[in-house]
Amino acid sequence: MDEFALIERFFRRTPRRPQTRLGIGDDCALLRLPADRVLAVTMDTLVAGVHFFPDVDPEALGHKVLAVNLSDLAAVGAEPVWGFLALTLPRVDTDWLERFAGGLFELAGRYRVDLAGGDTTRGPLTVTLQASGWVPERQALKRSGARPGDGIYLSGWLGDAGLGLKMLQGEVTWRDPDTVARLLRPEPRVELGLALRGLAHACIDVSDGLAADLHHLLNASGVGGTIEWEALPLSPAMRRYLTEGGDWRLPLQAGEDYELCFTMPPWREADLERRLPSGGVAWHRIGTIEKQDGLRITKGEKVTALPAVGYRHF
Amino acid sequence: MDEFALIERFFRRTPRRPQTRLGIGDDCALLRLPADRVLAVTMDTLVAGVHFFPDVDPEALGHKVLAVNLSDLAAVGAEPVWGFLALTLPRVDTDWLERFAGGLFELAGRYRVDLAGGDTTRGPLTVTLQASGWVPERQALKRSGARPGDGIYLSGWLGDAGLGLKMLQGEVTWRDPDTVARLLRPEPRVELGLALRGLAHACIDVSDGLAADLHHLLNASGVGGTIEWEALPLSPAMRRYLTEGGDWRLPLQAGEDYELCFTMPPWREADLERRLPSGGVAWHRIGTIEKQDGLRITKGEKVTALPAVGYRHF
Repeated sequence: MDEFALIERFFRRTPRRPQTRLGIGDDCALLRLPADRVLAVTMDTLVAGVHFFPDVDPEALGHKVLAVNLSDLAAVGAEPVWGFLALTLPRVDTDWLERFAGGLFELAGRYRVDLAGGDTTRGPLTVTLQASGWVPERQALKRSGARPGDGIYLSGWLGDAGLGLKMLQGEVTWRDPDTVARLLRPEPRVELGLALRGLAHACIDVSDGLAADLHHLLNASGVGGTIEWEALPLSPAMRRYLTEGGDWRLPLQAGEDYELCFTMPPWREADLERRLPSGGVAWHRIGTIEKQDGLRITKGEKVTALPAVGYRHF
Repeated sequence: MDEFALIERFFRRTPRRPQTRLGIGDDCALLRLPADRVLAVTMDTLVAGVHFFPDVDPEALGHKVLAVNLSDLAAVGAEPVWGFLALTLPRVDTDWLERFAGGLFELAGRYRVDLAGGDTTRGPLTVTLQASGWVPERQALKRSGARPGDGIYLSGWLGDAGLGLKMLQGEVTWRDPDTVARLLRPEPRVELGLALRGLAHACIDVSDGLAADLHHLLNASGVGGTIEWEALPLSPAMRRYLTEGGDWRLPLQAGEDYELCFTMPPWREADLERRLPSGGVAWHRIGTIEKQDGLRITKGEKVTALPAVGYRHF
C-alpha cells in the first residue's frame, strides 16, 4: 500500500465544517475563518518509548494525540475545528492503522474536528498532531491575566495520570482501571474552556504537573499564589496510594493530567456553575492568587515553598 | 537545558507580522487572518535515515524543512506567513540547534514567516514543520483545473535533486556542488506561485518526481497529456549523466526537486513573463494537456506511455 492509498483508506473523510474549503488531497488545505474570530493553533508530538509504550493500544494513541492538542485549545477557550496529522510509522500495519484512525476519529467526530491534511512517512513510530480552532480575540484565555485575590481552580482529579503510569510500570502493585485510563485516554476539557470565556482571568492546561504549570501561569501574570493541600482534588485511588506511604509530591509533580488550571474571582463561581452542563467535569478551588511572588502550599498550619518541579522533556 | 530554555534560546523571535497576535509561549498561538483571504495549510515530516543523512549539515536541514513546506504553499499560490515546528531530538546539542535554527530563520526571514509555536521532544531525530499562509480563495491554485489545450510548464531543472542524491551515495562518481545543493537546499518557488494566481489553471509541486506528480494533476483534472523529451529542462550535470549512459528515467522519476509544474493557455506566457522579476527562476513549456486520459512522452517520432512511477513512501 503506498502513501496515497493509505491516506485514502484510513484518513480521508468528508469534511463536516463548511469552512473546510479544501481538505486532504491537494498540496494544501484551504480553510476559512469567521471574520470575528482569531485562529488558535497548537502542536504536540508523542514519541514511542518516550511518551507512550510501543505496544500501546493504537486506538488509545489515536485518541490521546488529538486529546492533548484539544486540551491546549481548551486552555485558551477556543472551539476546536481542524487537525493535521504527521504520522511516522516503521511499516504499514493495516490493523494498527484502522484502530489508530478509529480512536482519532471518534474524538474528532465528537467535536466536529475535520482532519484536513498531514503527512505519513516511514521511520520510528512518532505521532505529531497540530490542532486549530477559533475564539473571539478578546475572549481568548491566556496565562498572563491572573490577579491577586483570584481563586486558583483545577478541573478533574490531580495526578491520576502519573499514578496510572506507576501502575503500568509496576511501581504500584495494584491497578485501578479508571486511573490507568486517565493516563491512556485523557479527556480534553473543551466545554470547560468554552465556559471560562469572559470569566477566567488566566488559564493553562496541566501537562507537566501542577507545580510546574502553575509556576508558568504565575510568572506570566507577574503574581504569586498559595494552594492548600487539603483542597486538592485527590481521587480514591490517589488517597489509597498516599495512605499506603506513597510520595506526597506525586499529585503535585506528575504530568499528563490534561486538566485545566484557571484563576477567576471567587464570586464568579456561580456563573461558571450555571454555564456548565451537569454531569460534566468537576472543578475545585484549590488556592488563591497573591501579590507575593512564588508558589506556596499550606498543609495544616505549615506553609512551604513549592518549587517548579515537573516533567522534564530532556 | 530544559525544553523551555531551549525554545527561548533558539526558537523564540519577535513576530514580524501584526497578524501574529500571540506567538510562542502560551498554550496556543493566536493568529488573525485578513477578511478577504483563506488560510492555506501544509505539513511535512523529514526523518533521519529516510529523508536525510543523520550527519546532514543542520543548517541545510533547517532550511529544507521549511523550504519543502513553502513549496506546497507556492503550489496553491499562497503567501507564506506562519510556521510551527515539531522537533524530536535524541539529545540537546546546542551547536547543532544553533545551526539548525540559523538555516530555518534565514529562509523564514526572507519571506517574513513567523515561527509561532511547536513542540520539542526527545526521541529519534525527526523534524515536522507545518506552514500556513493566505490566498484570496478564488485565486487559489489547485491540481484540478487543467484543461485540454493548456501548455504543461515546469520551473527550474528537472531531476537534479535525484542526481545529487546519486552523487552523495557514490552511485555517480563525480560531484557537482550545484546539483548536490539542489537536493540539500531546495529553493521554494514562492514568487512563481504568487505570479501564477489568475494565470495557471492547475499547479502542483514536484516532490515525488515529475511522472508521479503530473499524474496526480491529470487525474485530479480528469484530463491527460503529452510531454516532449526534447523540451525537458535538463541541467548540464544531468546532460553529462545521461551522455555517460545514465538511466534516462531518472529526471522523470526522481523526487525532491520542489519545482512547480503548472498548466495554462500558451497565450498567457507573455503575462507570466511580465509578472516575474528578471533573475528569478526559469520556467519552460514541456508539453500539452489533452482530452485523452493518461500521460505520454514523445522522444523524436516515438510516443510512449509514461507510468506514474516515483518516490515510494513505504
